[in-house]
Amino acid sequence: MKQFVIIGLGRFGTSVAKTLAYKYYDVLAIDINEEKVQEISDEVTHAVNLDATNKKALTNLGVGNFDVAVVSIGEDVHANILTTLILKELGVEEVVAKAQDSLHGRILTKLGADRVVYPEHDMGTRIANHLVSAQILDYIELAPNYSVIEIKASSKMYGRSLLDLSLRTKFGVNVVAIKRGKKIDVSPQAETKIEEKDTLIVIGSNDSLEELKKF
Amino acid sequence: MKQFVIIGLGRFGTSVAKTLAYKYYDVLAIDINEEKVQEISDEVTHAVNLDATNKKALTNLGVGNFDVAVVSIGEDVHANILTTLILKELGVEEVVAKAQDSLHGRILTKLGADRVVYPEHDMGTRIANHLVSAQILDYIELAPNYSVIEIKASSKMYGRSLLDLSLRTKFGVNVVAIKRGKKIDVSPQAETKIEEKDTLIVIGSNDSLEELKKF
Amino acid sequence: MKQFVIIGLGRFGTSVAKTLAYKYYDVLAIDINEEKVQEISDEVTHAVNLDATNKKALTNLGVGNFDVAVVSIGEDVHANILTTLILKELGVEEVVAKAQDSLHGRILTKLGADRVVYPEHDMGTRIANHLVSAQILDYIELAPNYSVIEIKASSKMYGRSLLDLSLRTKFGVNVVAIKRGKKIDVSPQAETKIEEKDTLIVIGSNDSLEELKKF
Amino acid sequence: MKQFVIIGLGRFGTSVAKTLAYKYYDVLAIDINEEKVQEISDEVTHAVNLDATNKKALTNLGVGNFDVAVVSIGEDVHANILTTLILKELGVEEVVAKAQDSLHGRILTKLGADRVVYPEHDMGTRIANHLVSAQILDYIELAPNYSVIEIKASSKMYGRSLLDLSLRTKFGVNVVAIKRGKKIDVSPQAETKIEEKDTLIVIGSNDSLEELKKF
Amino acid sequence: MKQFVIIGLGRFGTSVAKTLAYKYYDVLAIDINEEKVQEISDEVTHAVNLDATNKKALTNLGVGNFDVAVVSIGEDVHANILTTLILKELGVEEVVAKAQDSLHGRILTKLGADRVVYPEHDMGTRIANHLVSAQILDYIELAPNYSVIEIKASSKMYGRSLLDLSLRTKFGVNVVAIKRGKKIDVSPQAETKIEEKDTLIVIGSNDSLEELKKF
Amino acid sequence: MKQFVIIGLGRFGTSVAKTLAYKYYDVLAIDINEEKVQEISDEVTHAVNLDATNKKALTNLGVGNFDVAVVSIGEDVHANILTTLILKELGVEEVVAKAQDSLHGRILTKLGADRVVYPEHDMGTRIANHLVSAQILDYIELAPNYSVIEIKASSKMYGRSLLDLSLRTKFGVNVVAIKRGKKIDVSPQAETKIEEKDTLIVIGSNDSLEELKKF
Amino acid sequence: MKQFVIIGLGRFGTSVAKTLAYKYYDVLAIDINEEKVQEISDEVTHAVNLDATNKKALTNLGVGNFDVAVVSIGEDVHANILTTLILKELGVEEVVAKAQDSLHGRILTKLGADRVVYPEHDMGTRIANHLVSAQILDYIELAPNYSVIEIKASSKMYGRSLLDLSLRTKFGVNVVAIKRGKKIDVSPQAETKIEEKDTLIVIGSNDSLEELKKF
Amino acid sequence: MKQFVIIGLGRFGTSVAKTLAYKYYDVLAIDINEEKVQEISDEVTHAVNLDATNKKALTNLGVGNFDVAVVSIGEDVHANILTTLILKELGVEEVVAKAQDSLHGRILTKLGADRVVYPEHDMGTRIANHLVSAQILDYIELAPNYSVIEIKASSKMYGRSLLDLSLRTKFGVNVVAIKRGKKIDVSPQAETKIEEKDTLIVIGSNDSLEELKKF
Repeated sequence: MKQFVIIGLGRFGTSVAKTLAYKYYDVLAIDINEEKVQEISDEVTHAVNLDATNKKALTNLGVGNFDVAVVSIGEDVHANILTTLILKELGVEEVVAKAQDSLHGRILTKLGADRVVYPEHDMGTRIANHLVSAQILDYIELAPNYSVIEIKASSKMYGRSLLDLSLRTKFGVNVVAIKRGKKIDVSPQAETKIEEKDTLIVIGSNDSLEELKKF
Repeated sequence: MKQFVIIGLGRFGTSVAKTLAYKYYDVLAIDINEEKVQEISDEVTHAVNLDATNKKALTNLGVGNFDVAVVSIGEDVHANILTTLILKELGVEEVVAKAQDSLHGRILTKLGADRVVYPEHDMGTRIANHLVSAQILDYIELAPNYSVIEIKASSKMYGRSLLDLSLRTKFGVNVVAIKRGKKIDVSPQAETKIEEKDTLIVIGSNDSLEELKKF
Repeated sequence: MKQFVIIGLGRFGTSVAKTLAYKYYDVLAIDINEEKVQEISDEVTHAVNLDATNKKALTNLGVGNFDVAVVSIGEDVHANILTTLILKELGVEEVVAKAQDSLHGRILTKLGADRVVYPEHDMGTRIANHLVSAQILDYIELAPNYSVIEIKASSKMYGRSLLDLSLRTKFGVNVVAIKRGKKIDVSPQAETKIEEKDTLIVIGSNDSLEELKKF
Repeated sequence: MKQFVIIGLGRFGTSVAKTLAYKYYDVLAIDINEEKVQEISDEVTHAVNLDATNKKALTNLGVGNFDVAVVSIGEDVHANILTTLILKELGVEEVVAKAQDSLHGRILTKLGADRVVYPEHDMGTRIANHLVSAQILDYIELAPNYSVIEIKASSKMYGRSLLDLSLRTKFGVNVVAIKRGKKIDVSPQAETKIEEKDTLIVIGSNDSLEELKKF
Repeated sequence: MKQFVIIGLGRFGTSVAKTLAYKYYDVLAIDINEEKVQEISDEVTHAVNLDATNKKALTNLGVGNFDVAVVSIGEDVHANILTTLILKELGVEEVVAKAQDSLHGRILTKLGADRVVYPEHDMGTRIANHLVSAQILDYIELAPNYSVIEIKASSKMYGRSLLDLSLRTKFGVNVVAIKRGKKIDVSPQAETKIEEKDTLIVIGSNDSLEELKKF
Repeated sequence: MKQFVIIGLGRFGTSVAKTLAYKYYDVLAIDINEEKVQEISDEVTHAVNLDATNKKALTNLGVGNFDVAVVSIGEDVHANILTTLILKELGVEEVVAKAQDSLHGRILTKLGADRVVYPEHDMGTRIANHLVSAQILDYIELAPNYSVIEIKASSKMYGRSLLDLSLRTKFGVNVVAIKRGKKIDVSPQAETKIEEKDTLIVIGSNDSLEELKKF
Repeated sequence: MKQFVIIGLGRFGTSVAKTLAYKYYDVLAIDINEEKVQEISDEVTHAVNLDATNKKALTNLGVGNFDVAVVSIGEDVHANILTTLILKELGVEEVVAKAQDSLHGRILTKLGADRVVYPEHDMGTRIANHLVSAQILDYIELAPNYSVIEIKASSKMYGRSLLDLSLRTKFGVNVVAIKRGKKIDVSPQAETKIEEKDTLIVIGSNDSLEELKKF
Repeated sequence: MKQFVIIGLGRFGTSVAKTLAYKYYDVLAIDINEEKVQEISDEVTHAVNLDATNKKALTNLGVGNFDVAVVSIGEDVHANILTTLILKELGVEEVVAKAQDSLHGRILTKLGADRVVYPEHDMGTRIANHLVSAQILDYIELAPNYSVIEIKASSKMYGRSLLDLSLRTKFGVNVVAIKRGKKIDVSPQAETKIEEKDTLIVIGSNDSLEELKKF
C-alpha cells in the first residue's frame, strides 16, 4: 500500500491528508507551524513539525522512501519551490505540487514535479460551470467536446419513460444512470419512468448536453 | 440569459469570472484593488474598482438586479461576511460565497448565502481521491456509495471485448463510454475490444469500482 | 440566581463584569489576553484566559449552561461575530453582543444575538441630550414623545409650592419626586415648597418638558 | 442658542454631533482624518479636517468663541489631552472630554475639563443593571439608594387595579406612569387596571424596587 | 540627606542618576526596560524594573517618601505625563519633569510638576552662545542683561596688569577670577598680569561683555 | 560675521538655529523632513530640504564655504556620521557634532569633528547639580575644584553686611555680585547689606561652596 | 558586438553594468526601483524601470534579442528565479544568474541558467587566500594544485638575479613577469636583478608556491 | 601561525572563515545571531555568539591578541563601523573591513581599517570582464594596461606549435603555461603543439590580449 507525505497543512494540505488517512493510508503530515501539526496529529499516522526547506531534516526523517509527496505549501512560494526540488533530489517517485499560477507551475515542472495542481483556479472553473446551469450538479470533462454530467430532471420529463423521451434520438445523449433519493439505478431500462426530483447521469457531446439542459 | 457579479478577484474569483465570460455571459467583476480590476477589464463585460462592504456603492451600481453573485473575497473574512449580507439585503437572488472553514460557512448560511464553497478543501479531497488510484483520472461522486469514474484500461483488458471481460458480471459495474485518443464512443457495444491507452468511463458502487481498479 | 459569562474584558466588558459581581452574581470573565484576566481575577467568580472563537474550549468550560452571555469583544470584529454564533450554538439562552455599527448589528441579530448594544453611539446620544439643557441631569426616553427627566429647579420655582406652580396645568407635566440633598420625596404633596438646589423628577411629553426647561 | 464644536469623529463623537445637529444646533465637527470629515459633512453645520493639537489652526477657526466643546478623540490619548488643554487656553467655557480610565480623567480635570465622560464604562454599568432584571428596560439612578425604573408588568399584576395591587403599601414604591403600546398615561388612577404588555414607570428605594421585581 | 528617585534611564536620566550617586546621595533608579536597569544597578543605591504608570507599583515601592523625583521618560510622552501626575498624588514634594516642548511643559505644570526641563532645547541655546564667541567657554545668565562669563584672554591682554587694562573703566566689567592652568586666583589684584592661555571670569552687562569679546 | 549651517532640525538643532538667528547671524537650516524645514523657514536666513548624506547636494548648496556646521541629526546615527565626514571633506572649518555616547563621540572625533556635544548627558549633569542644593540656581565649573555659583541668600544672612558676614574669612569664598530683583550690583561693597530674596554670585572652591550652602 | 541586459541594480549588478558600459558595450539596465534606474541612466545605453517578473513587459522591451542577460536580483530570491526562467523562455542565449546558496544555484541551473555566480562567497574565498600570505596580491587558481600568483619580492631576493636565485631549481616555480613601479617586464631574463618593491608573477604548484612564500 | 577572528557570519564572512579553517588556521567566528554561530561551530576553532559592538565582551574574549580581524558585518552599517573602531582600539594589528560603498569605505579607513573590501562590487567587475570574452576563464590585472589571463585555445591554434603560432611576434604576448585536462605544463617549449580543449595562460598588455582573443 502506498505511503504519502503531505508538506504544508493549510486548508488544501489538511484536506488531502485527512482524506487519505480516512482511507487507511499511511500519511506523514509536515508543517513548519507547530500548532497545525498538533491539530492534525490525531488523524494521521505521523505528524512532524519541521522546516521542509531543510534538506538534512527531511533526509533524517526518511522522506525519500515515501511513494508520493504532496507539496501543499501555499503562502511561501519560495519554500514551495525549494521543497519540491529537495523531494525530487531525495528520490521521491511522485511529487504533486500546488502552484499559484502558470509561471509558478512551469518552474515546478522544470524542477521535476510530476503533477502540478491549482486548487483555487480549478475550483473556480468547476463552480462557474455549475452556475451557468442550475441543473448540473457535477460533471466530468472527458475531452474538449464530451462530458458526463449529473443533471436534475426537468419538469417536461416527469412521468415519462426513457423510451418515450428518446433523448438519444432528440439530443444524441445517453442516460447511463438515474439517482432517486438514495438509490441509484446504474442500468436504467427503456421503460423506466422519470419522476420528480430524479437526477440523471448523462453522457454526450457538450453541444448535445447544452440542448438537453434547455429541454 | 443570467447576469453575474463576481466580487473578489483572487485566483478563485478570476477563474469563475473568466470561465463565465468565455461562455458569453454578462459578468461584472469587482475588487477593492485597482490593479486586479485593470488586469481583468479586457476579459469581462464590466470591471469596477470599489469596496464591496460599502452598501451605497453597490446600490448605485445596480448590483441588486443581478441574478447571481459570487463572493470570492478570500483574505479579509469580515469583508466576505459583510458583502454577503449586503448582497442579500439588496435582493440578489442567488449568492454563492467562498468560505474558509465550516464555522465561517455556517455564518454565511445564516446570513442568507444560497451556496457556500470551500475551494481549497474540496480540491484537496479530489486530489487525494486521484492519488490513491493512479488509474482514476476524474470522477463524480453520485452518492456516498456510487460513483462514475474515468479510469485507464489495465493491461489485463487489452485486446478483449466488453462481452469477454463481462465486467458487469464480475464487478457489478457498467462501462458507459470508451475514450480512444480524441474520439469517444458513448454507446460501446458488447463486442467492442479494449485497446492499450483506452480510457473507460464506468459507473458502479464504490466497492465494485475499488475491485475493478485492482483488476 | 442567574449566571453570567462576559467575553472580552475591555472597558465595556470589565464594567459589565464588575457591576454584576458587585451585586453578588456569579460571573465568569473570559479574555484572550492573559494580563486582562489577571487584573479582574480578584473581582469575579472565575476568570479564564482563552480564545473564545475556539468552540471546543468554550464547550469544555461548560459555557452553554450559563443564563446570559455578554460578547464585549471590541477590536476584532470577526472574533466578536464568531463568538456570538458559537454561544448560540452552545445553547446560551440570552446573548447580548456589542456592535460597532448597524451593519455589524444586523449580522449579530441574524446569527441569533438576543440584544445588540452600541455603547459609544448610545452614550454619545445621552451626552448630547444632557448638553443641550444644562438643567437635565438624566432621563428615560419612554417613547418617541414621552420622557421622565431629572431636572434642576429653576430660580422661578424657589419658595413656591407645587400647587402654586401648577406645572401640570401650565405645562402638562407631573412632578413625581423631589430630591433635596441626599433625601428623596417620592410622594411630593401639593403644598411642598421647592427650595434652591432641589432636583425635580418630572414626567411628560417631550414638548411639554422642553417648555418646562425654559421656565 | 448654544454653539458646539465636536473634535474626534469616532462612534461617540459622531453620535454626539448628529444628535445635536438633529435638534438644529450649530455644530462644528473636526477630525484629523479627512474621510470621516467627508462622511459627516452633510449632517452638521461645518465639518473641518485638521489636527486639533495644532493650536494655531484651532485659533484661526475661531474655536474659542464656541460655547461647548466635546473632545471625543479616542485612540490617541495624548492628542485628547493636548486638545483639552488648548481648548481651555482658547477660552472655551464648557469642555466635555471623553476619558479612557480614571487616571486619564484626573489629568483632564486638572487641565480644566468641565466634565469627563467614560462611554464604554458607563454603558457597561447600564447594561449590567438591565441584565440582572430582564424586566427593567431603563432607569435613572436618583441617588445611591433611589431610582426611577421602567419595568414590564409581571403576570401577577395582569387584570388588577393599582388600588388592588397597593404597591405603595406592599413595597413602598409609587407607579408614576403606565405605558400601553404607544400611549402613555402619566397620571394613572387608583382604579386603572394593569394589562399584559403594560410597562410601569415606578419610583422608589432600590431595595423596594428589588422586591417589586420579584413580585 | 535628600533621597532621589529617577524614572526613565535614557541618556538624560542616566546622567542625572550617576551624577547624584557620585556625590553619595541615595538614588532609586526606575525604568520599564530591564536591560537599562541592569546596566545602572552597580552605580546607584537601588535599581528597579517597573512600569511607572502603574500607581500601585510605585506605592508599594514607597516612592511617595522620596524628597525629589526626576521624570526623565522621553519617548513615551503620555507615560511621562501619567507618571508626573502619580508622583504628585503620592506626595513627592519636588517633581522635576523633562518636557519635549512648551505645550507639554504647560501640561506638566498644571499637573503639579515643580520644575520642567527641556534638555535638548536648553543645550542648543548654550551651544549657540558658545559658538558665536569662540572665546567664551561657559556662562551664567544672571538676568536678561547681565552674565558671568568664562573667557579666554585675548592677545591684547598678554603681559598687561588688570590695572593697566582697566577693563572696568573701558567696558564696565569686573574680572572676578583668573584661571591659569589648574590654579585659580579668586582674588585677582590690580597688579596681576595676564598671561597667554589665561582664562578670565568676568561679570558685567551683556553689552559690555560683547564689547570685551571684541577687545 | 560668521556663517552657520545647522543640519538636523530636532529640538537641539532648532534651538541652536533659532538662537543664532536671533543674534542676527546668517543661518542655513537643513533637514531631510520637509515639514521641519517649513516650520523654521521664517526664522532663519535659508531653510533647505535635502538629505545631508548626499555629498553632491551639499556641494551644490555651497556648504563648504560656511564657517561653522552643527550636525544635530539625532535618530539616525549613521547619517550623523556620514554627514560629519562629508562636511570635513567639503572643507568646513569648524564642525560641531552631537553624539549619543562616548563610542559615537570617538568616531566623530576620528572623522575630524572639531567639537562633540552630548546634550542629554550634559543637561542631566547640570540638573543633578542644581537638585542637590535647592539654593543653587546656576553655576560654572571653572575647574575640577572651583566654581562660580548663583545662590539664594539664606535666612542667616538677612540684614547683615558683607563685612559683618565675612564670608571670605569663614568660608574662603568671594561674593562677586548681588542680584536684587531685576537689578544687579557687580561691585558689592563691604557695607552692602543682604536682603531677603537676594541672590549672591559667589566664587570659591567646591568644598568652600558646599560649606557656604549649609550656612 | 554583444548586447547585454542587466536586471537588478544592487551593488553587484551596478558594477557589472558600469564595467561593461565602460568598455563601450550596449547595456540595458533594468530595476523595479525607479531611483536606482535614475542613478545609472547616464552611464548605460538604456535604463528602464520595470518589474522583471512581468513577462509581457520584458517581451515588449525585446529582451529576448539580447546576447547575454545577468540576473543580479539579490533580496527577492523568488523574483530572481522567476526572471531567470522568463529570460530562458524568451530565448536569451546566455543567462548568468547570481545565487545566494547552492540550493538556489541548483534551481537556477535546472531552469536553464548558463552560469551561476555567488559573489559574496567567491570574494570571501579570494580574501581568505590573500590574508594567509600578506605577500600575495592576486592569483589565478589554474587547477586544484596549480596557480599563477602575484607576489611581493622578499628581502632575500633584493639585488640578486633570477639566475642567481634559481627559483625553478629550488622551488620548481617559474617567474613569468616582473612588475617594477608602473612598468612590467613580461620576458624577464636570467640576469634581471630583483629590486626592492618589485612584484613577481610566478607560476607553479601550490606546494611550491607555499615554499616560495616562506623564502 | 597567524590567528584570525571573523565577525559577521553572512555569506562573505562564512566563506572567509571556512577557507581559513580549511587551511588549518586558528579561526574565531563571531556573530550576533546564535543560529549562525551554531551552523559554523563544527568547522572553525571557536564560534561565539555575542554583539561585537560591545567592547567589554570583545575584550573579555581576548580579541585584541588576534593577528587579523575581518569585519564582515553587512546589513547593519553602523555596527560594522563601531566594530572596526573597537578592534583598532583593542590593538588588533590588521583589520580588514567589508564596505558597502566608497563613502563607507572612507569612514572605515579614517577609523584605522587596514584594508577595505567591496565584495559585490569587485565580483561584479570580474564577472563583467569574463562576459566580454567568453574565452577568458580568469585573470589577474597586473597594472592598468597589463594582465595575466587564462584563455581557451581558439580553433586556429589547434595542432600548431608555439613556434609556428609565434604569438609573441604577432601579438606581443607570452604563453607562460598550458593546461591540458588536469595536467599543467609550466615551461611550455617552442615545439609544444596546442590541442583542442587546451587552456593557455598568457601574459601581455591588455591591447595585445584583446587582439589575441579575436585570433
